[in-house]
Amino acid sequence: MADKTIILYDFPSKNGSWNAFVIRIRLALKYKGLPFKTVWIEYPDVESTLKAAGIPPTAQWPDSGKPSYTLPAIVDPSTGAALADSLVIAEYLDKAYPDKPLLMPSSTKALQLAFEQAVLSSIGPMFFQFILIKLCDVVNPASEEYFRRSRVSLFGKSVEDLVPKGESAKEEWKKLEAGFGKIAGWMKEDKFVMGDTVSFADFVIGGWIITSKIAWGEDSQEWKDIAEWHDGRWSKLVKNLEPYYSK
Amino acid sequence: MADKTIILYDFPSKNGSWNAFVIRIRLALKYKGLPFKTVWIEYPDVESTLKAAGIPPTAQWPDSGKPSYTLPAIVDPSTGAALADSLVIAEYLDKAYPDKPLLMPSSTKALQLAFEQAVLSSIGPMFFQFILIKLCDVVNPASEEYFRRSRVSLFGKSVEDLVPKGESAKEEWKKLEAGFGKIAGWMKEDKFVMGDTVSFADFVIGGWIITSKIAWGEDSQEWKDIAEWHDGRWSKLVKNLEPYYSK
Repeated sequence: MADKTIILYDFPSKNGSWNAFVIRIRLALKYKGLPFKTVWIEYPDVESTLKAAGIPPTAQWPDSGKPSYTLPAIVDPSTGAALADSLVIAEYLDKAYPDKPLLMPSSTKALQLAFEQAVLSSIGPMFFQFILIKLCDVVNPASEEYFRRSRVSLFGKSVEDLVPKGESAKEEWKKLEAGFGKIAGWMKEDKFVMGDTVSFADFVIGGWIITSKIAWGEDSQEWKDIAEWHDGRWSKLVKNLEPYYSK
Repeated sequence: MADKTIILYDFPSKNGSWNAFVIRIRLALKYKGLPFKTVWIEYPDVESTLKAAGIPPTAQWPDSGKPSYTLPAIVDPSTGAALADSLVIAEYLDKAYPDKPLLMPSSTKALQLAFEQAVLSSIGPMFFQFILIKLCDVVNPASEEYFRRSRVSLFGKSVEDLVPKGESAKEEWKKLEAGFGKIAGWMKEDKFVMGDTVSFADFVIGGWIITSKIAWGEDSQEWKDIAEWHDGRWSKLVKNLEPYYSK
């Protein structure tokens, strides 16, 4: 019998999976109960590996305009699907496996996709400037130079220059807290974004939180801050998502 | 019998209601089938009128830090509720009138609130720079000076200086189209954000579109552009929302 295990392409580190966007799909696959195996790829090998697997690019490099190949990406031997982009993959998994728990429950698909944008716009700009330099230490040495160089292309600055300094650092950290505060305001007392029902929206937030914990480390002041913000709901969310998470 | 009609505070113009945020609530009240009457207020009178009605401020002025009173605002004589902010009002209406059609159907509340942010971040920055100067001609003369002055406080520039010029105007207009394209990408072939079900998310988009039509005028190139973008879906949406709209 042919192997029907889904292949998930992911970035390695000494602590396993760490990328917020890939973690979404890792959570999604386990939540849907779909067996998968990980193929670990260093940054410089993403393009050639994905091309060889027939997975299309998802974007263009801002400087050169050339196609950009990104993770997460999957190959599903059951259907022949070969896809990248966490939102595209999530939609595919619900369509291909509608009898498994839905990532985007009936009639919330557009709302779920928009949620990703809502979260990105609320915390992304603050997050990236602080976390990218930390992620240089998370990725393997084989990826670091590529990671640094491509961040300059994507963000227009070196990861060092992106980090806010002095008073600005305090202000930007407060803005990050306020960004998470917006999300807390939407969720109110609910455990998950849709109340008691887990959905892709939780994996979007969960991805960011798990990446934070890995990037700063459990003993850092940064992680302690994030874990305490808004009555500790972000660390609780990660705990609530544990049944669906494996590195 | 005491009058139970909800009072909606709105900004007048020679074309009636025009403000995207108030239009959301106008649509919401009619969708829920709740009788309401409009109290029209010019900008300089908002603070004193809302204070007198016991409606709290919703924000702070960025320059002075003083409390800022905004529309939409409602007073509901049935419950004594006196509220401002379109999201707060929408949540209140579902809570107070759960037997009427829900604006935020069960378990989508957080997703609906986030949708507002997703739309704002996708089109807001481009929209405001083009539309504010047009709105100076929409508001009544009694409001214009206040409107212009307070936009400087909110956006840090005069409405004239906000408008992109020359090549930049073309680029920014294309960015606005791309912002709407994101929303179209979330909705795909669906008529409403939640498929066949109308929800508050549609009123958020609808508010922006109705304001555009009023600000630029039906014969303008700007409105023709917006009405044609993405297979004409935005003008169709306004048409589909007509049963819930009255000036």
